[in-house]
Order: sequence, then structure tokens, then C-alpha cells
Amino acid sequence: MNIKLTLSYDGTSYCGWQIQKNGVSVQEELEKAVFLTTGEKVKITGSGRTDAGVHAKGQVANFNTNSTIPPEKFYKALNVHLPYDIRVLKSELEADDFSARKSAKRKTYSYSFYISETEQPLKERYAVKLDRAPDIQKMDECAKLFIGEHDFKCFNASGGGAKTTVRTVYDISVEKDNDRITIFVTGNGFLYNMVRTLVGTLLSFCYGQIDLNTIKTMLDSGDRSLCGRTLPARGLCLESVCYD
Amino acid sequence: MNIKLTLSYDGTSYCGWQIQKNGVSVQEELEKAVFLTTGEKVKITGSGRTDAGVHAKGQVANFNTNSTIPPEKFYKALNVHLPYDIRVLKSELEADDFSARKSAKRKTYSYSFYISETEQPLKERYAVKLDRAPDIQKMDECAKLFIGEHDFKCFNASGGGAKTTVRTVYDISVEKDNDRITIFVTGNGFLYNMVRTLVGTLLSFCYGQIDLNTIKTMLDSGDRSLCGRTLPARGLCLESVCYD
Repeated sequence: MNIKLTLSYDGTSYCGWQIQKNGVSVQEELEKAVFLTTGEKVKITGSGRTDAGVHAKGQVANFNTNSTIPPEKFYKALNVHLPYDIRVLKSELEADDFSARKSAKRKTYSYSFYISETEQPLKERYAVKLDRAPDIQKMDECAKLFIGEHDFKCFNASGGGAKTTVRTVYDISVEKDNDRITIFVTGNGFLYNMVRTLVGTLLSFCYGQIDLNTIKTMLDSGDRSLCGRTLPARGLCLESVCYD
Repeated sequence: MNIKLTLSYDGTSYCGWQIQKNGVSVQEELEKAVFLTTGEKVKITGSGRTDAGVHAKGQVANFNTNSTIPPEKFYKALNVHLPYDIRVLKSELEADDFSARKSAKRKTYSYSFYISETEQPLKERYAVKLDRAPDIQKMDECAKLFIGEHDFKCFNASGGGAKTTVRTVYDISVEKDNDRITIFVTGNGFLYNMVRTLVGTLLSFCYGQIDLNTIKTMLDSGDRSLCGRTLPARGLCLESVCYD
């Protein structure tokens, strides 16, 4: 049977989702947990990679098993064998042709900032410090340029290896809650480092380092050198993956 | 000159505030930072100990120095030498007789919970999971019993070594924000483990495990065996220390 998992992790200690030689990955920990639960060596498919240090509230994955554990109880069995910073929140039976990666329709990432003069140790793990609050209206104005289907070649970091750099961004919204600012980006898929560079570009615009014309040129020309900086991984979180 | 520091730390990696043989303490890291900044071996006085794993948003400390660094700039110099999970937020000149410990008038601690069926890795570091929301009104009702001057002998963990177990609790308030519940406790001082056991007792009352009469008896008799459980350190945070 094909089991769909919804999981959350604190990415701080991991080299990312995907199994790699030079670090411990979330995928590896999950496959180990399935082995310890069922005795099966399975390959777990994620909705997509998250980079080293990136967090997830709603990553989705699937795998095939011959186990007799009821699908909706699988998550409890897996959690027994997972480290404290990875938890499966839900497990369910899916159709045989369901693939966490190929069936995904939309993903939402969030990027979090906090406003402070000094670094705040209790906020640094899941957000990035800004010295002063960006103008949310300016951010909204700039965000509109990225919504829709575009060739996001300018945001494609080397090493991404995507076949096409065309993606559709459905929505970008900004939430402000006291000294915390969170930017939500929803799209049909994202290139390697795309969200971190897109949000970095929004910031550069808010702080007057680039103007709207430069952003239009970067989208039209695909020139990565025009973009804002790629922001640190720890502010990024995979919020949810949608399959309907 | 006598320098007052206000600092924040993520207590996860520390054996607590106070220097100990079997672990790295916040005090030790601070004294090291002063040495690397000024070349002086100083003793830093904290407003009080925080236990292993307890966090702080506004711990206060002081020390004497012959350095010529302007007091209000000291914090920047210290932060250069501190690990990422400890940050001095503010430094200021104080009167010679100021002591972070002896001059403290009031302290506020918070204890944070989140409501969830499954552990959430992105919340576990700074809060403790509850399966179901406690009744906030019941919590308020119970909290009233602790407000005022009482002999809190029943909440005094062995190893505290306090001269008297009489303390005044000025206020206990409960805040609910979506799935997050935070309890703030303000008093003139707290016994070893007192806040964690007090909040554990509030919870036990909310969940119907003990009644108001038992709580009155535990306060009158000082019988620790009647209290709720001592909650984990990671939910506790020293919010602020007041000196007015």
C-alpha cells in the first residue's frame, strides 16, 4: 500500500531533505524509521527537496509498504523511531499512483523576519533579524511583479538542475505581527533557492537598493546578478503542499 | 565602574545560569566574554539562577570593570565574544551599590504550552505540548490562591537552599493566542523550581486531578507530595527583572 505522510521538522541539524554523503538528511532519518518499524528498506519520495537548515511545518512524502499497520496509525509507529526534531503529523492511505512529488499542485513557503537592533537568541533559530521594519506597502507593490507565470531563470541558483525555469507564483502575502514579519509565497513549484532570492529581492526594493525597473529587467533578462541577496536558510519554512 | 547588563539566552545548551563543574553555564560564557573584551577576570552577578535548559528574554547581571569602553556600548563588544545563543541586549552604568541580585524588586517568568495531538518540532524548543486546551477560567480561579504573600515551602525543591520559603506573588496571568498558552508569574523572588511546580499544579487543577481544597492544604501544610508535577525546563523563560 501507498502511504502518504505529512511531517514537520526543525531543519537546523540536517543537510536538507535529500540523502547526501556529507550529512544527515531528513529522508534518511525517515527511511531508517520505516526500517525499524517494518523491517522494509523503502525509498521515501518527498514533495521536493528542502535545503540544509530549512524548516518544514507540512512537508509531504510517500512510500510503499507491505506492512499490516493501519495507514492512519503509521505516524505513531514512525515517531517512536524518529529524532525529536522530526515528527510525522499524519499518515493516510493513498491511491497507488499518488506521488508526493509528481502529484503536488501547489506549495506554500514562508520566510520570517523579526525587527530588532540586537540579535535575539530566542528568535534567531526560525527567523532572520532586520534592523528596521520594511515598508509593507512597498513590499506588496513589488510582490505583484512576481505573481503569475514567469521564467524565473534569474532566481535559479547553480546546482538546481531543473529542466525548465518557468514557474507560476499564485500568491505572495505579507503578515505583520508586532516585531515579526512573515512572507508567504505560493506557487506550482520553486527553483533551487528561488524563495530565498525572491524575498531577498523584495527586501532590497523596500530598502531602496533596487528599483522596480531593475526587477522587471531581471525577470526579462534572467540576469541573476541583478537580484537581491539569497537570504539565510533558517528563515525559510515549507508550510504546506497541496494535491487537490 | 558598575555595569548593568540585560541579556537574552536560549538555555537549551547550558547547565543554567550559574557556573558549575559539569557543564557550560551562561555566567561562564559572559565572564569569558568580559575577559576577552577587557582582559579583566571579573565575577558577574546575575539577578538569580536560571536552571539548566531555562530560557531568558530579560535576565539582568552586573559586574565591575576598569575598562574605558563607554557603558552603553559595552554590550556590542561583549556580543562579539559570545556564542550565538547568548546576546547582551543593553548595557548601562549603575550606582556602585547596585547589585543585580540584591537590588531586584520583582521578576516575571513565563511558562509556554502549545496544544497539539502530535509533538511539533518547530514549537518543542520553547514550549511544552498539551493534548487538549485547559480551561483558562479554571486556571485563573486557581491562580488566585497563589497571589499574595505565602509560605511556598510546598514548591521548594530539595537543593534550593533558600533561607526562607516565604515569597510574594504579585500577579499570575494567562494569555491564549491560537494554539499557544502562556502563563506569566510575577513575584518578589522564586524558590528553586517554584514556577515549574506552581504551573504544574495549575494544570493538575484544570484537568481535574486535584481540587482547590488540596491546593489550600498544600499551601498551609507545605506538603510537596500534594503538588502537581514539576514541568520541563524548556517551557520556562525569565521575562524580566524589575529594580525601580
